[in-house]
Parts: sequence; structure tokens; C-alpha cells
Amino acid sequence: METLRVSGNSRPNAVAGAVAALLRSQGQVEVQAIGPAAVNQAIKAIAIARGYLHDDHLDLTVQPSFVKLDVASEERTAMKFLVYGYSTQQP
Amino acid sequence: METLRVSGNSRPNAVAGAVAALLRSQGQVEVQAIGPAAVNQAIKAIAIARGYLHDDHLDLTVQPSFVKLDVASEERTAMKFLVYGYSTQQP
Repeated sequence: METLRVSGNSRPNAVAGAVAALLRSQGQVEVQAIGPAAVNQAIKAIAIARGYLHDDHLDLTVQPSFVKLDVASEERTAMKFLVYGYSTQQP
Repeated sequence: METLRVSGNSRPNAVAGAVAALLRSQGQVEVQAIGPAAVNQAIKAIAIARGYLHDDHLDLTVQPSFVKLDVASEERTAMKFLVYGYSTQQP
């Protein structure tokens, strides 16, 4: 699964475009964020991505969890978002 | 659907307990948060709730979106998290 790392300075619209593209091509993507500002940007991006996917009859769900990441040789607790795409079209 | 409003001062463990209880009894809950600190607490709470549900063979998924809320007669953009529970037991 591809991993996107989001920071507090990430532009939500740009991250949303990457999330939407990966859901279209691969059906899933992992988004990582360290700290409240980054978590907020990540969540905004994922919410915006739902709008980008709407015209493709796709939507997404998220499963958040904690993950330990090494950042500059220090262990930091980050949030990990597993994002899954699904079709909204009736079978 | 019950709505939980989370602030930046909310204790994630307490919110997680409420989320888990509502998922057990009703299968779904809406969580609202205004601002990065509140969004971060809400996401931490939802991640913690997954652990609380694990022994009940339940897990959850989240769908984030934007919502306009009236706060003290001012319109604020908040994040809304629709949280759905599901059984992890094999049929």
C-alpha cells in the first residue's frame, strides 16, 4: 500500500488529489500524520478527496490507528489512516 | 444518530468510551469537532475506541466531511465524523 506523509504545512487540496488518485488506481492508501496540525490537514484532505471521487461513483472509509515512527532517530507516535475506496454504484 | 461534540480539552479516553458504548448499542455515532486541536482529540478517541471494541469482536470505520455549525451565533466550519461499527467475527 502506498504511504502519504502529511505535515502541518501540507496543502489539503494537493493531498486530497493524491489520495483520490491512489484510491482510483489501487483502491487503498495509507496516510500518516504526526501532531495535531498534521492530523487536521490529513483529515481535511481525506474529506476533500471524497468530493473528488464523487463523480467517479467512488467513496471512501477511514480506519485510524496509532503508529510509532522514527523521525530524525527519535520515536514519535503518529496517527495512521488506512483509507479504502469503494464503489457507490448500485450493482 | 447520537452526536458527540469534541473539544480540544476533551479527554480522548472518555470520548473513546462514549464512542464504543454508542457503537455497541446503536451501531453508529456522529462525532463533531471544530479546529485542529479538537479534530486531533476526536481522531485519537476514535482510534482508542477501536481497542475498546476489539474484545467484543467489533471494529469501526469513519467517514469524515465538512459541516457548518452555529457556535454563539457565528457560523463555523467543523469536521463531522460518521462512525460505523461492524462485526469482525467470521459468519
